[in-house]
Amino acid sequence: MSLVVVGSMAFDAIETPFGKSDKIIGGAGTYIAWCATNFAPVKQISVVGGDFPQSELDALTARSVDLEGVQIKKDEKTFFWSGRYHMDMNSRDTLVTELNVLGSFNPVVPNSFQDCTYLMLGNLAPAVQLSVINQLQKRPKLVVLDTMNFWMEIALDDLKQVLAKTDVLMVNDSEARQLSGNYSLVKAAKTIMAMGPQFLIIKKGEHGALLFHENKVFAAPALPLEEVFDPTGAGDTFAGGFIGHIAKTNDVSFENMKTAIIVGSAMASFCVEKFGTERLRNLTDADIKERIDEFVQLASFDINLV
Amino acid sequence: MSLVVVGSMAFDAIETPFGKSDKIIGGAGTYIAWCATNFAPVKQISVVGGDFPQSELDALTARSVDLEGVQIKKDEKTFFWSGRYHMDMNSRDTLVTELNVLGSFNPVVPNSFQDCTYLMLGNLAPAVQLSVINQLQKRPKLVVLDTMNFWMEIALDDLKQVLAKTDVLMVNDSEARQLSGNYSLVKAAKTIMAMGPQFLIIKKGEHGALLFHENKVFAAPALPLEEVFDPTGAGDTFAGGFIGHIAKTNDVSFENMKTAIIVGSAMASFCVEKFGTERLRNLTDADIKERIDEFVQLASFDINLV
Repeated sequence: MSLVVVGSMAFDAIETPFGKSDKIIGGAGTYIAWCATNFAPVKQISVVGGDFPQSELDALTARSVDLEGVQIKKDEKTFFWSGRYHMDMNSRDTLVTELNVLGSFNPVVPNSFQDCTYLMLGNLAPAVQLSVINQLQKRPKLVVLDTMNFWMEIALDDLKQVLAKTDVLMVNDSEARQLSGNYSLVKAAKTIMAMGPQFLIIKKGEHGALLFHENKVFAAPALPLEEVFDPTGAGDTFAGGFIGHIAKTNDVSFENMKTAIIVGSAMASFCVEKFGTERLRNLTDADIKERIDEFVQLASFDINLV
Repeated sequence: MSLVVVGSMAFDAIETPFGKSDKIIGGAGTYIAWCATNFAPVKQISVVGGDFPQSELDALTARSVDLEGVQIKKDEKTFFWSGRYHMDMNSRDTLVTELNVLGSFNPVVPNSFQDCTYLMLGNLAPAVQLSVINQLQKRPKLVVLDTMNFWMEIALDDLKQVLAKTDVLMVNDSEARQLSGNYSLVKAAKTIMAMGPQFLIIKKGEHGALLFHENKVFAAPALPLEEVFDPTGAGDTFAGGFIGHIAKTNDVSFENMKTAIIVGSAMASFCVEKFGTERLRNLTDADIKERIDEFVQLASFDINLV
């Protein structure tokens, strides 16, 4: 039984209305790993340049992240992204994208990762995601896919191939509409589930998330926050909490996925409290339990009163 | 014990991407009455012209709506509104507004309405809402206020006077931001509750609703719908379901308000299925119970799995 995560490891530079970060550690794979290791060990597939700090790699190893699948290209540079958030924190401008090592990334799945039970495909080029799926000799129990509008625009055919091999897709509401061509999210869900995934998670940021499966739907709330300091990585952290909980409980039922979405939402609510991965690095089990309890309070109501 | 509703009774003409209505019965007070009477009798305060159909008044009376507080101005015309919804159904253009009798509306509270326990102030000029509050010799157990951005723009001082006498305010998210000057809804809630209401309901349409009280918050989901046929009156119907449940149960606790929001949300989900008040006119208790059960399914999760 193992959880394999595929995703970028990167440098980010972030500007928000509240401040500006230096070049800090980022990347979908990094956020997923920092988050998921609260629940289960991670086998990581990624690529970094010679400029990626050894201290970060050591910190991840200490966190029970197996880095055998992380290629280190000594003479090249790590993927770099820089962005600026608008006042509403829901929209952002990309200022700089330097693909660097990510531009030629050819993932190699180590033999020791062939025991993969849970495969979390972080947001990345669909061709890379597909390569990892195809290298696994045994189909994982659950393949979870995160993607974004960018790939729908430039690599839709590749993305459709990945979708056909995916169990759970997570996208935001505008991406669900774009991918399906349906404005109604209920219709969008039906269209997308016909493309492969039996489960669809639609992330709606401050409005929570929806889980669709067959004719069932679950609505998870988002915790209303006094301040969102930095939304970067919130979606990746959600993915990490989701797959971490699934791996820990080894249960892929609809009921358990509902719980996994609450766990993912709770973890994402931590992520946005500080720049980058900072808040994720020193969470205790008690912190997490307390935050999940807040979600229970937030969503519970008594219908026996009716 | 009685539930008094103040609100417009009107004609509407509605265009949506799915069709166009004739001049049909509308108005906040009408929607609230049709909805709330599923739960409790209503004493209605409003004004109509001589053109308002007697058959509609008779239907409301048969529905246990006491119309003693409804002024009929034989020689004048009923308020008329016409609007066109955009494809996303969240935004609309007003095509025609003819205030007619509403322009000079001076509400008179009948003596038989002085037993008012629950006062639902539907969306209307704050001066009219204030006049009704001031005519009541005994303060109701609960005053619930619906309003909109329009009144914040042209009658903010009046609105603030009403707010100071209100227990529960219901507005949408952009209105909460406008009224408070805060982007964060948590901060907006604090600011607004300092203006008078101890409870704040923020309606988010397809994203559900939030209830704030002291340091507590409840997030109600909205039922994901395959099609929204006509959103007109959904907010009024929500208000009607909310206050109807409160009046029926005679319980103004935070816990019961959570349930009332679920009831209001369920009723609003019916409203949008057809043009105008049509769907509200023939709901059975079984229909309502079934829809509320869908909300329970939608929102429930088991955290013992964590």
